[in-house]
Parts: sequence; structure tokens; C-alpha cells
Amino acid sequence: MALIPPKTPPGIMELLPRQQVAFQRLLDTIRTGFERFGFLPVETPVFESVDVLLTKSGGETEKQIYFVQSTGARQQNRDPELALRFDLTIPLARYVAEHEHDLAFPFRRYQIQRVYRGERNQKGRFREFYQCDIDVIGKDTLPLAYDAEMPAVIYHIFSELKIGGFRINFNNRKVLIGLLSGLDIADAERQKLVLREIDKLDKVGRDKVIETLTGGEIALLPDIAARILDLIGLNGSNAEILAALEAMPIADPVFRAGVTELRTVLDGLAAFGVPDTHYGINLAIARGLDYYTGTVYETFLTDFPGIGSVCSGGRYDNLASHYTRSTLPGVGISIGATRLFYQLSEAGLFKAETGTSQVLVTQLVPALTADYFLIASQLRQAGINTELQLEPAKIARQLKYADRAGIPLAVLLGEDELARHTVTVKDLRDGTQHTIARDVLAAALSALLAPRAAP
Amino acid sequence: MALIPPKTPPGIMELLPRQQVAFQRLLDTIRTGFERFGFLPVETPVFESVDVLLTKSGGETEKQIYFVQSTGARQQNRDPELALRFDLTIPLARYVAEHEHDLAFPFRRYQIQRVYRGERNQKGRFREFYQCDIDVIGKDTLPLAYDAEMPAVIYHIFSELKIGGFRINFNNRKVLIGLLSGLDIADAERQKLVLREIDKLDKVGRDKVIETLTGGEIALLPDIAARILDLIGLNGSNAEILAALEAMPIADPVFRAGVTELRTVLDGLAAFGVPDTHYGINLAIARGLDYYTGTVYETFLTDFPGIGSVCSGGRYDNLASHYTRSTLPGVGISIGATRLFYQLSEAGLFKAETGTSQVLVTQLVPALTADYFLIASQLRQAGINTELQLEPAKIARQLKYADRAGIPLAVLLGEDELARHTVTVKDLRDGTQHTIARDVLAAALSALLAPRAAP
Repeated sequence: MALIPPKTPPGIMELLPRQQVAFQRLLDTIRTGFERFGFLPVETPVFESVDVLLTKSGGETEKQIYFVQSTGARQQNRDPELALRFDLTIPLARYVAEHEHDLAFPFRRYQIQRVYRGERNQKGRFREFYQCDIDVIGKDTLPLAYDAEMPAVIYHIFSELKIGGFRINFNNRKVLIGLLSGLDIADAERQKLVLREIDKLDKVGRDKVIETLTGGEIALLPDIAARILDLIGLNGSNAEILAALEAMPIADPVFRAGVTELRTVLDGLAAFGVPDTHYGINLAIARGLDYYTGTVYETFLTDFPGIGSVCSGGRYDNLASHYTRSTLPGVGISIGATRLFYQLSEAGLFKAETGTSQVLVTQLVPALTADYFLIASQLRQAGINTELQLEPAKIARQLKYADRAGIPLAVLLGEDELARHTVTVKDLRDGTQHTIARDVLAAALSALLAPRAAP
Repeated sequence: MALIPPKTPPGIMELLPRQQVAFQRLLDTIRTGFERFGFLPVETPVFESVDVLLTKSGGETEKQIYFVQSTGARQQNRDPELALRFDLTIPLARYVAEHEHDLAFPFRRYQIQRVYRGERNQKGRFREFYQCDIDVIGKDTLPLAYDAEMPAVIYHIFSELKIGGFRINFNNRKVLIGLLSGLDIADAERQKLVLREIDKLDKVGRDKVIETLTGGEIALLPDIAARILDLIGLNGSNAEILAALEAMPIADPVFRAGVTELRTVLDGLAAFGVPDTHYGINLAIARGLDYYTGTVYETFLTDFPGIGSVCSGGRYDNLASHYTRSTLPGVGISIGATRLFYQLSEAGLFKAETGTSQVLVTQLVPALTADYFLIASQLRQAGINTELQLEPAKIARQLKYADRAGIPLAVLLGEDELARHTVTVKDLRDGTQHTIARDVLAAALSALLAPRAAP
């Protein structure tokens, strides 16, 4: 029989078990952080109706959709009715609109699921990847204080992840929009084009941005373009930037509202106890998505600047206008866990973790099998993740297996140990060996497994 | 603008947040149990290549496939290259074959992911549902002792789930196959037909099974059919059934091997300390899937017999013959978590849980906002899941929200409490109220949140 090549579909990050353990810990840390702030879990189906998913006409997104069709529907030659979600925002909007009367508002939800994009296949871009989202959704209104809570969540989680320094940059789109209006750039479409260029500042540099702003489609006067870039390039402490903004002779009410919102968020961050080493106003953050209407966030790892933003989000005026007439303002952030894991692994930061097993009970003497079973059961009852070696292999091979599988401790019991009511424990991390009485085995192994204090 | 109806696709179990918390606890208990026995996590992509997925020609499964196609592929009018996984067994086979040289054998993996079947839409049948699988895969051989470990895992997890009594029934297909050979029913296809009928015994009863066995396609002599049913209906303790099997005048070597395997598994279960109230030989279990070759399991909830088997599995000779020439025998079990949750919810067993938040910090006096932020941060740092009310609503409405969201404790701080360095804590579970000093708040709340001893 010809073999079928066993291949993961292209564009997928499939992990070996010990990498999966490390990735799982990343997701667990994120989830624990979300729950610490009282967010409630939601899971939505992997596919949505095409009608629900494709509310916008055209656009980049629609070119990357995965359509889904059952065998029966295909045979009837119908157009697909389902498609895989490409983000968690549209499913959230549909979920809140559908279940509106069963939810308590402000509704705080977290969602950690995979999303799908039919991207061109290239290194570091994935067709299936995890997003870890939180959003707070209000009914009619949502106080600005929630905008200050988002960076507090980011600070908590990225501190727990222990992947080095990070900085949360934030801005307010009203400041930018109001600035443009104040400079007589009033047309909304033209404003969007300008914001899109501003977002590229970090990548392409000031000169290139000025060139685009003053050229072709946008055609700003050079003086106006320079004033915009001067403002968004404002430097200094948060208090200094805020003071400079407040002193600006721009009367536009949207601009003033944006500055006030920035100050409120800044005050909130201090009240939450987030250290100001870890956040700052960055007026160059525009976030291309038209969908954001106020505060916007981006988070950078200071040790890995090349990775780009690892957690972004912002405030929006109305989540679900396509599905309900209720006004549902919200604020949210998203961590792209697959990409984060991939890039930190490439940078050598996520090593393959030890496996899930903490102890391997080896098999030395087949006649003692019942004892091995019993020891394993006792350790499991004591809460120790225990694997039982049931292959009658040479002990050296069993220990090699434990080492390869990332199991730190091996328990050995032969006739000698049996007579003395002891076992031998090999610590595969440092090669040490211990003789331990059977009746205190679980406690002794727990002690060996406890995290060691730094010397 | 016309609204798009916000509807979950049909055949999906989508949960409200507090139900989702309960479901998440179910999955967490299963996962913790799998890890306790040293199984390693694996996740595979939601879709596989059609080539990989559809190795078998025809059959029920292929009629229920969901095909997946990107916008680009659809435009080129190509046949779909991808399809959603309909179980976790084929992805496991592909995974082990693809990564064979990077895995340590015996390879113990758990996988908790959703699978997809384009089933007809009917109550209690889902098109998307969780499977929670473990398998141990050997290279060339796998000792029978692993077959005894599976029920030990089932026993551990179903004890932890606390959903009442359960019983693990097991059998060995060799006993049945050998019995049929011993009765001169040697043709493999005919044997499968007989086993498929035996599997229906519980549902349709003895008379109906005999009718089918002696009728049309199978056409056994009435005497033979009766002998088969007498044997599989053997009653008594495990030791008695085993003794009866051993005493039978059937020389067929497959039969004898099956009986020996049954005894080995039984001895193993005792050595693992699984109480014999929770398992038993049931010779009527055949498991329709041709794929199993030895031990087979089914698990029933004794308080909910109508639910049917909630955890099934068995031993197979070769996992991945479609993808590799290596021989990979294995044994595994699967818990259908979505169906289990749905049915136990219908039976009233899974109530909506309290939310993820343990404490709501309310907002009484807007001027004290910074204090509310600080209290919330302190509680979170102490590991208490804390939600902060930032809407300036009436206190009665805030407490109603907490109650609706399932938050057990509310913290109130007004000018009086501020002056006295205290807070008022309302326990929404029993309506009691406590005055607590601010500097011991986290400890006091932890004490209130600790599970109460039964009276």
C-alpha cells in the first residue's frame, strides 16, 4: 500500500510535546491574569455564518477568508454558508448582540481561541493562530476609567510572563483627529489616510512620511505636514507631553476631549499602581483600524524591539452596530500568543519545558510490578504528576527515556530496596541519587520538586 | 441600515459566561487528571489535508466532513485541499508519523480540542464538540499493563468530577472473535457483522439480536446464536466470569489469548488500587469500530444510565499504517466533554457556576476612586480575582450586578469607612455584612472565600 505523506498543512505552528508544554504555560499565565481582573470566559464556534462574518464589503480581510462547507452542501453546489473566524472581535459582537438580554453589563469577557487567515505562506506568518482578547462592553456608556484598567492588565500579565522589560505605549485618536481638524483637514477619509501614514512613522521614518503626506492623494502643505510630525514627535515625560498638549493653541473640541481623556487614563494608571517605567504617551500611535475612536494601546518588549507590538487594542464607540440597535461602547486588548511564542522561541527565550510528568516510576524487576503500580498510585494521590514505565526495558534505556521526555526524577525499586522498605531516587537534573524510605516518599519527592531558592 | 440577525450557526453548543465557567472547570479537571498520569499535551490544527483525513474510502464519516477552502482557492475553482478534523485519532496518527523521530516512545499524549461533524441538526447532537483523548503509543510493542492504566485514569478523573457513581465496563475483542472462530464463524466480515449486532444488545434486547443473527445476511444456526448470547451474558463477579471463561472448552488460540489478557488487565486494576466497585468485565461490549483489536472500554454514570457511555476506548494494533511503515500499537480513551456537559446540564447537575470574579470593589463616592483602584490592585496582588466597578451607578444596582454576575463578595468604602481605615464587606451568598480593617482585607476575604467545611 502506498503511504500518504504525513504533513501538517502549510502555515501552521505545530509544536512538539515539550514545546507545547511551554506554550500551554504561556496561555495559562494569560488566562490566570485575565481571571485575576474578573473577566469571564467566552468561547464561540470556529465558524460563523458568512452573513455575520462578512459585514464589510471588500477589503483585505475578505481575500483571506476560509470558507467551510459540509459534504452535503457541496453536493448541492450551494455557496458556502459558513466561514472560519478571522478574529475574535466579530464573534464577540455577534455574541453580545445575540445574548444581550442574558448578560450583565458592563460585560467583561476574555476569549482565548484560534483564528484563521488564508495568508500567503511565509516565515513567521500563520494561517491558524491564537488570539487572547479581553473587552469590557458597556450598555450606552462606558466610563473612561476602564481605559486605565487595560494597561493594568497588560502590566500584570507581562510581569508574570517573565520575558524581560516591556513598555505600554498609548495615545488617543481624538488628539490626532482633533489636531487634523484644527489644521483644517476636516474630511474624514483624508484624516484616515493621514493617520495611516502616521502609523508607519516608526518603520519608514519622518522624511518618507512627509513625502507621502505632501504628495499625491493627501497633498498637505509642507508646513502643515511638518506641524503634524512635530506634534506627534513630542518628547519628554508623560507629564511634560500632557502639559505641552494642554498648552497648545488648538481650540478644536475633539482635540481638547482627547487631551482630557489622556490625562484621565494617566491618572488612572497611577492609581492602579502601574509603575511609570512601564508606560508612556506616544502620540505617533494611530492604530490603522478605523474602528478605534479614543484610547489606543501598543506594547513593546524592550529586549526584543524587532518583534513589534505584542499586545494592542483600544476604545471603540459601538461594538455591534451591524447586529443590534443597542449602543455598545467598549475597550479591549489582544495578545497574539502564537506569534509571540514563535518569535520568543526564535530569540531563544522559550526553551522546551520539562514535560508534564514530574516523576518516572521505573521497572527493574517484573515480579515487583504490583509495587510499581502502587507507588505510582500513591504519588498521584499526593498530587505528583507520575508516569509509570511499563515496558520491560533495560534501566539505562528507561532513564534515557526520562531524560529525553524531560522528567526530572526517577524512582527505582529492586529487591534490595524492597527488603529495606526504601526506594532509590535519581535526580536527572543534576545526577544526584537519594535513598528514601517508602512511607515518606511522596513528601520527599515534593521537596525535591519544589522550586529552589536562588543561591 | 438593515441589521444582520446575530445567530450562532445551528448545531453548536454556545454557552453563557457562567455556564462557560462550569464547562471550563470540567475541562480543567480532565486536563489535570491527564497530567497527573504524565500525559503530554498535543494540539493539532483544526484542519488537515484532505489526503490525510480521508484515508478510508466511503463510509459514514466522509458524508459528514466539513471542507475548507480559502477565498483564493475558491476563485480558482479548485477542489478543497483541507477539511476540519472529525476526531483526534487521525490527527494523532499523522502527528506521530510526521514527528516519529522527535518523540520518546512509549509516547503518552493528551489532546483536548474540538472536532467537527456535519451531522443532521437534532437536539443533543453537535456539529462542533470537544473530545478529550489520551493514548499511549508504543514502537513495535506496547505491554498490556498500559491497558490496565487506562481505567485507572478514568477512575481518577470521574472521581474528581464529582458527578456521582460510575462504572467502567471492559472486555476484550479477542474473546469475542475467538469465540466466533471457535464456533466456526471464521469469516472476518461475518464476524464484524455479528459483533455489530452484539453491541446493540443493551438497546434492542436478546430476542431481537437473536432474530438478526439467525436471519438474512448473517444466518447463524439458532443454537449457535443462543450459545453466543449465553456466553456474552455471563453474570457474576469478575473472578467468576474469568473462571467461567477459563473453564470453557474452546481451544481457539485467539480466545485463549483474550482471556489471558482480560486476567492481566484485571490484576493490573487491582494493583493500581482501583476499587472493584467501579469496574467490571462485560462480555457484551464489542465497540463497533473495527479499529480495536484487544481490550475495549465503556464508562457509564450509574445515576444517569440514559446518557450512555461517557468515556470509551480500547487497544489497537497499529495506529498509523496509512502514513508510516513503523508499527505503532497503542491504547487510548476519549471523553466527549461537550455531550457530557450538555446532558448533565439537562439533568440539572451542572448549575451555572459563580463567575471568575471573587470580589467586586464597588464605587460609592467618586472622590474615592483612587482608593477603589488601590484596593483592587492589592487584592489582585494577593491572588484574589477582583473586579472593579467603574460605572457610577447606585449601590443597589452595583450589588444587583454582582449577584447576577455570580460574584460572592462586594467591598464598600465610603467616607465613614475611610476615616476608620475599614471597609464594609457584603457576602451576597448569605446576605451577611462584615466590617474589616483595610490592612487585613486580603486575608479576611481569602478566609471568607475558602470552601466551607460541611456542617
